[in-house]
Amino acid sequence: MFEPVRIGLLGRGTVGGAFAGLLAERADAVEAATGRRPQLVGTLTRTEGDFGEILDEADLIVELIGGTEPAREYVLAALRAGRPVVTANKQLLAQHGDELFAAAREAGVQLRFEAAVAGVIPIVRTIQESFGVTEIDKVFGIVNGTTNFILSEMAATGAAYEDVLARAQERGYAEADPSDDVSGADAAAKMAILARLAFHTPVTLDQVAYEGIEQVKPDDLAYAKELDLSLKLLGVAERRDGGISVRVFPCFLYGGHPLSPVGGPFNAVMVEAPAIVEVTMSGPGAGGIETASAVLGDVASILAGDTPVHEAREQLPLVADVSSSFYLHLEVADRPGVLAKIAQLLGESGISVKSVVQRGIGDDARLVMVVHECLESSFASALERIAALEELRSPPRSIRVIEEQFV
Amino acid sequence: MFEPVRIGLLGRGTVGGAFAGLLAERADAVEAATGRRPQLVGTLTRTEGDFGEILDEADLIVELIGGTEPAREYVLAALRAGRPVVTANKQLLAQHGDELFAAAREAGVQLRFEAAVAGVIPIVRTIQESFGVTEIDKVFGIVNGTTNFILSEMAATGAAYEDVLARAQERGYAEADPSDDVSGADAAAKMAILARLAFHTPVTLDQVAYEGIEQVKPDDLAYAKELDLSLKLLGVAERRDGGISVRVFPCFLYGGHPLSPVGGPFNAVMVEAPAIVEVTMSGPGAGGIETASAVLGDVASILAGDTPVHEAREQLPLVADVSSSFYLHLEVADRPGVLAKIAQLLGESGISVKSVVQRGIGDDARLVMVVHECLESSFASALERIAALEELRSPPRSIRVIEEQFV
Repeated sequence: MFEPVRIGLLGRGTVGGAFAGLLAERADAVEAATGRRPQLVGTLTRTEGDFGEILDEADLIVELIGGTEPAREYVLAALRAGRPVVTANKQLLAQHGDELFAAAREAGVQLRFEAAVAGVIPIVRTIQESFGVTEIDKVFGIVNGTTNFILSEMAATGAAYEDVLARAQERGYAEADPSDDVSGADAAAKMAILARLAFHTPVTLDQVAYEGIEQVKPDDLAYAKELDLSLKLLGVAERRDGGISVRVFPCFLYGGHPLSPVGGPFNAVMVEAPAIVEVTMSGPGAGGIETASAVLGDVASILAGDTPVHEAREQLPLVADVSSSFYLHLEVADRPGVLAKIAQLLGESGISVKSVVQRGIGDDARLVMVVHECLESSFASALERIAALEELRSPPRSIRVIEEQFV
Repeated sequence: MFEPVRIGLLGRGTVGGAFAGLLAERADAVEAATGRRPQLVGTLTRTEGDFGEILDEADLIVELIGGTEPAREYVLAALRAGRPVVTANKQLLAQHGDELFAAAREAGVQLRFEAAVAGVIPIVRTIQESFGVTEIDKVFGIVNGTTNFILSEMAATGAAYEDVLARAQERGYAEADPSDDVSGADAAAKMAILARLAFHTPVTLDQVAYEGIEQVKPDDLAYAKELDLSLKLLGVAERRDGGISVRVFPCFLYGGHPLSPVGGPFNAVMVEAPAIVEVTMSGPGAGGIETASAVLGDVASILAGDTPVHEAREQLPLVADVSSSFYLHLEVADRPGVLAKIAQLLGESGISVKSVVQRGIGDDARLVMVVHECLESSFASALERIAALEELRSPPRSIRVIEEQFV
């Protein structure tokens, strides 16, 4: 149990490189969590390494070369040799899932692939494990970050598809050849995988109908805004009429839809079932370190086996005085100089005001303000001094505010 | 391997009853997924059953009686007797976690508790397994559905706390004695559990500072609306200054925050770490069947052991012609009767119009409409007839729309 686990890595591109770094960085954490220390024993790149040698030396194979061949051949060989495999390869699973899953079952070893769908969002584990015995009706969402970035930018700026695509390429959100992403083919592969897991039925890539976003015009987005609609490239896998339907298409959503606020390169997936109503999960859909992180989670799960029993391995002190931003509600006598007095008391505690609304009511006034982040102890002492002002008509009321602005 | 798994159930209240029903209903699915068929062999209620007898007969114990005693005594006895335990009992874990986790480790059996935090949202599994070796910075969110319902209603209606609480009690979203929920104590227990898992450090309930929502006034919410703020009861567990801070407090969020749209009795949890950026998960926070579903997911995971290898067990046909709602963009000659012609063609295919925007541009006009859900084949044939109209200035453009409105 306490020998190191030897890991063979196939591929050292963006994700492979990030994985190698993360594995070294988190080796202590993996050992603490699983009782076994991971150790990279070989890496196969286009120019270096021999697959046969790596397989002989490794206890577990991580496949990050992408594409279907030779990835398929390597993964099959590893499974048949009794090595568990972790892969991020959506095309491989969407096109050759039956063969790979059969090989894993025959060998009695795990084949894990969280990183193949929706980046760090743990949707594969959720569907396979948390909802593995739930009668799922529908799995749908935004599973391609490139197209979501493009559509978000088109909606925000009114720019044409071609211009926004060029911007996405500059910023690294779209590849030099973006056709797999913008045509919907990438999302189709991911939906084939999710449909297979959700409905326990074989689904292959050629069964998924897909449309892309190349035809979307700026004025579609402009009119849609008037109708309170936002445009997303959706993947939808659902039960219909005793069968299933698996499709990818651009689609408008109304403002209140849970997927409507998901912008930029983020992904989000919803699962619907009578017993769970709906669960929505969102997060970054791609990125080297994010994808590598999902791969490492799978590696750790294989090493941990079936005993996720929590064990404390740190003794962290509790910090009592943290900083917050605050909303402050004051009812005061409507006299000149009251606001100045209050602002001065706040200033003396090092607290700066972000926004103020003042409104008179007869002889009184309400002051509602939001102050910037400060130590809670500073705010409490300022509040005590404000409460003692003779102009106060009732005790001050305060509520914390999170100032952080998200995408 | 193919003997039934005998399950002993402690408690038959709302969740216990729902679990017994769900277990019977999903026994085939559990057997298909895990190779083992679950069978209820005994139930302990206040008036019936004997714990010792149930323990003797059972392979696995499901604890749904709630409270700390005798739940603690039963769970410890089951673990020490080598029985894996699934529980939904947040108070038990928040107050006696150290003792229970130690007993599980010593016996080498699993203790699972997904249902103890945030209902069907798989946040416990995600933190323990997917992010088990990730350096988590912060876990925070809305982990109490009762208070979220009350705050959503107060914001929407302007009603006072007491009135909305009474409404929540009528609708079953608040208990007769709501003090644990509205004081923040319930959320504090859940945050103690999440903090322990996220930071691998012992955290007990008495270390969590909490404030409730009893003091919130309607005009706080009214002013907040002017500042684009929405109010939530947040649980926050985060690393701070080399230690951790775990707290529960009412808090304003700006409109763009991912938790801001989470309304009604829903829960949502965010996890932040450098390697994953942020992952957000939302769903129903409570409910008998929803909680029972999370319990069943844990039971299935214990039965499945460490081999989540997908196996197809259904052969579902793919349905090609499904129904959708559509956005339709037409550039037409600006002549009397054009809209009528188009509406007639749609009507003849059984398609009804939901909304129309018409705008003139010189001699032409743009018609942008949304039609209600119809079979895609019907829409395609109507579109073909519309495209053939002599008044059309360019090919019609269409994009699907999801009409469904969410909370």
